Amino acid sequence: MPPFDVPEGDPFGTHNLPYGVFSLTGSDGSAGSAGSSGSAGSRSGGASGPSGPSGPSGSVDRRVGVRLGDHVLDAGAAAAALGSPYVSLLARPSLHPLLAAGRTAWSDVRRALTAWVTVPSHREAIEPLFHPLSSVTLHLPFEVADYVDFYASENHARNVGQIFRPDAADSLTPNWKHLPIGYHGRSGTVVVSGTDVVRPAGQRKAVSDPAPVFGPSVRLDIEAEVGFVVGAPSRMGEPVTLGDFREHVFGLCLLNDWSARDLQAWEYVPLGPFLGKSFATSVSAWITPLDALESARVTPPERTHPLLPYLDDTDDEPGGYDLRISVAVNGHVISEPPFSSMYWTAAQQLAHMTVNGASLRTGDLYGSGTVSGPSEHERGSLLELTWNGRDSLELPDGKRTFLEDGDVVTLSAWAPGPDGVRVGLGEVTGRVVPSASHPAPH
Amino acid sequence: MPPFDVPEGDPFGTHNLPYGVFSLTGSDGSAGSAGSSGSAGSRSGGASGPSGPSGPSGSVDRRVGVRLGDHVLDAGAAAAALGSPYVSLLARPSLHPLLAAGRTAWSDVRRALTAWVTVPSHREAIEPLFHPLSSVTLHLPFEVADYVDFYASENHARNVGQIFRPDAADSLTPNWKHLPIGYHGRSGTVVVSGTDVVRPAGQRKAVSDPAPVFGPSVRLDIEAEVGFVVGAPSRMGEPVTLGDFREHVFGLCLLNDWSARDLQAWEYVPLGPFLGKSFATSVSAWITPLDALESARVTPPERTHPLLPYLDDTDDEPGGYDLRISVAVNGHVISEPPFSSMYWTAAQQLAHMTVNGASLRTGDLYGSGTVSGPSEHERGSLLELTWNGRDSLELPDGKRTFLEDGDVVTLSAWAPGPDGVRVGLGEVTGRVVPSASHPAPH
Repeated sequence: MPPFDVPEGDPFGTHNLPYGVFSLTGSDGSAGSAGSSGSAGSRSGGASGPSGPSGPSGSVDRRVGVRLGDHVLDAGAAAAALGSPYVSLLARPSLHPLLAAGRTAWSDVRRALTAWVTVPSHREAIEPLFHPLSSVTLHLPFEVADYVDFYASENHARNVGQIFRPDAADSLTPNWKHLPIGYHGRSGTVVVSGTDVVRPAGQRKAVSDPAPVFGPSVRLDIEAEVGFVVGAPSRMGEPVTLGDFREHVFGLCLLNDWSARDLQAWEYVPLGPFLGKSFATSVSAWITPLDALESARVTPPERTHPLLPYLDDTDDEPGGYDLRISVAVNGHVISEPPFSSMYWTAAQQLAHMTVNGASLRTGDLYGSGTVSGPSEHERGSLLELTWNGRDSLELPDGKRTFLEDGDVVTLSAWAPGPDGVRVGLGEVTGRVVPSASHPAPH
Repeated sequence: MPPFDVPEGDPFGTHNLPYGVFSLTGSDGSAGSAGSSGSAGSRSGGASGPSGPSGPSGSVDRRVGVRLGDHVLDAGAAAAALGSPYVSLLARPSLHPLLAAGRTAWSDVRRALTAWVTVPSHREAIEPLFHPLSSVTLHLPFEVADYVDFYASENHARNVGQIFRPDAADSLTPNWKHLPIGYHGRSGTVVVSGTDVVRPAGQRKAVSDPAPVFGPSVRLDIEAEVGFVVGAPSRMGEPVTLGDFREHVFGLCLLNDWSARDLQAWEYVPLGPFLGKSFATSVSAWITPLDALESARVTPPERTHPLLPYLDDTDDEPGGYDLRISVAVNGHVISEPPFSSMYWTAAQQLAHMTVNGASLRTGDLYGSGTVSGPSEHERGSLLELTWNGRDSLELPDGKRTFLEDGDVVTLSAWAPGPDGVRVGLGEVTGRVVPSASHPAPH
C-alpha cells in the first residue's frame, strides 16, 4: 500500500487531491471508521467556528487530510516535514484557514501538494504521513456558515411541476427561466457522509384527511445534488459577479438533500420548505478543488430566454461541469443523473445569491438542486423515479416507492480528467434509521 | 452619572440587566459609537465562532457587557474584581460561553450580577467598571448559527393574504392554524442595531411587465419582530418539547426583518422568500434574558383549532409575552404592535422547529414573524400600513408608502416588570442607504 504507487487510472490519483478533515480512529474515543460514524460524533461542536486546541473541535485531534488512492495524507505534517510555508494553512484542525486564504493560495498549495506526492526525492519524508482510509475517522470537512439550496435542473423542475400542478399550463413557474430559484436551508444539520439519518416525524395531511396527522414521514426521499463550497468571503452590499466565481468558490462535493415529501407538501405554501428538509443534509467527506475539474468544464444547455446582464453567461468560459453521478440504494444503482444537463450554473447561482448585496462567508455551502437528466434513468429523486409513488422501483431486496428504514443511500460521481483519467468525487452515503419515539406532549 | 443611582423607574434598572458585547470606542480603530457603526466594522469576522485573542474577533477587545441605565458594566472585569467563579463565562470576547452554559448557569449568573450592582459593599469595586454607553461600540451580541423566521401573527397573515390573494375564500392558507409556518433565513447578514442597510437590487416583474427588470428595490419595507436566542443546544433526532423551552432559550431581542416586497413577490413561488429578505436582518445590541420578563408572561389568544399534542399548550403556563413595540421612521412613531396578540408562542415555534429531529445550536436565532395587532395603528409592516402602497403615511417630512433612502427605522419596546416598573428592550435601528451601483455584467 505505498501511496506513491497509486494505480494508474485511479480516480483519486495525483490529478485529484481532494481535501478533508480526519482523525486517527480512537483519538476521540470513537470506535467508528469512516462511513460508520454516529450522527453526533462526527460533527463539530455547537455553533463554533474553527478553534485551536482549546476549542470545541480541539478535543479531537482533527487534521487536514488530502486523499490519494485509498490513503489520506496528513497535510499539515507533510508541510512541517518539508519546511513548507503552508504549514500555517494545513497544520490546523479545520479547512477554514485554507478556505479563507483565497484563489492564489489555493492554487499555490495545490501545486505544492502535487510536488510532495509525485517528486521521488520527497518519498522518504512523505510516505510515513499517509494513513489508510480504513484507519481514520472522517469529519465534516468545514464548518457550514449559510446553506442555500437551488432548483436548477429544468428536467427536475418540470417533473415536479407535472406531479404537483398537473393542470398548470406550464410545468415551470413563470420565474424559473429568469432566475435560479433558491432558498436557505439549515446549516446546523449538514452532516458528513456516513452519518445515520433519523426518519423525521411531523405533520402531514392528505387531501382526503379532515385534519393533519402526526407521525414518521411515509415519503422519505433523496435528492442527488452537487454542493459548492465558498472559500473567500465578500462584503455586504457588494455583489459578486459571474466572472468572480472562481475567486470565491473553492470546490465542490456531492450532497444528498434528504426530503420528507409528505411533511413538505403540507407546510410549504407560502414560505417554502422547512421541516421537510431541515432534519438532515449529507455531504461528502472530501471537497474536490475546482482546479481538479478543469477538464470537466462544459457549456450549459442553450438558454431559451434572454437573461438580465448579471446572469448572462453567453460569452463566458463554459460554466457547467460534466459530472456523472450515480445513485444507489443498498448498493443497487437506481439512477445516473448527468450534472452537465443543469440549466443554471454554479457561477450564475453565486451571482444571483449576492446581487441583492448579501455577503458571503467562508464555509457558505450551496446546493445545485436535484440533478435530473432528460431520461427516466437519470432522475435524481424517488419522487420523480416513482412519479410520486405511482410506480415502484424493483430492487434486489424488494420494491420501493420511497425509502424504508435500514436503506443505505449512496451518491458517487466522477468527472473527465486530464488525459482520459477520471476524477473521482467523494461519495456521500447515509443509512435511514427509524424515527425516534414520538415526543411526549411535554 | 453613578450607575448605582440609576433613577427609579428606569426601564434599564437593576430588574432588567440585558447582555451585550462591547468594545471601548477606538480600541478597534473605529470612530463610531453605538448606533453609528458601519456594516462591516461591527460584525464578527467570517464564519468563525467565538475565538480567543488570536481569533478573528480577538483583533478587537470585545467584552461581555451588562446594561444598567445609560451605562454598560464590564461583566468579566466585575467577576474578576469580586473573585466570582463566573469569570470563565463573562471574561470572554463573546456571549457564546454564557449562552452555552444552560438554564441553571443563566439564573445563577443573573443572581450574582444583581448582587454586584445592588449590594452597597460592592460599590467601590464595581463602579469603576461601568462605561457610559456613549463611549462604547456595541457589537453583534452573539454569533448567529441558524436563523429561522416565523409568520405567527394572525392579523399579519390575514392582512398579507387579503393583499396578495384577494380572491381566496380564506385569507389564511389551510395549514396556518395547524402549525407555525417558518423558513430559514440568512444568518450571515444578521447585523447589530445601528448598521446601515444598503437598499438591495434585484429582479422584479409587475403583472404588466413583459419580462422582469433589474434595479434597486422600489418597495423596501420593515417587519417589526421579536427574536429569540437559543443558548443550550440539542441533539439531532431528539425533539425539544414545549416544556423544555426555557431550558434552551436564553432571551430575546427586537428584530427588523427588512424586506424588499418587489423582489420577494417575483421570486417566492414555489420555494419561499430568498433575496427579498437575505440582504439584511437587524437585531438589538442587547439580549434580554427570559428571567427579566417573568412579569410579562400572558396567555396567547384562544386557539380556534385543536392542536396536535406536540403543539398543544392549553394546560401550560402562559406562553405569550406582553411586549409593547413601537415602530418609528425618522423619529416619528407610525405603529405600536402588541406582541401579546401573537397566535403562536415562541415555545410552540421551538417545539415545531425541532419535532422533525432538527438539532439546535448555541446562537440559533428565530424571529416571531411580523407583529401586527388587530387595529390599523398596530400593523408591523409598511405593506400592511399602506395596504401595499395604495395608501400613504403622513410623516413630518412627507408622505411614505415604502422606505426612502436616508430613512432611519427604529423599533423599541417595553414589557411590564415587577412592581409596575417597565422592562426596556434594546432598540434596533438602521438607516437605509442607496443601492450600490449596478454590478457590471462581469
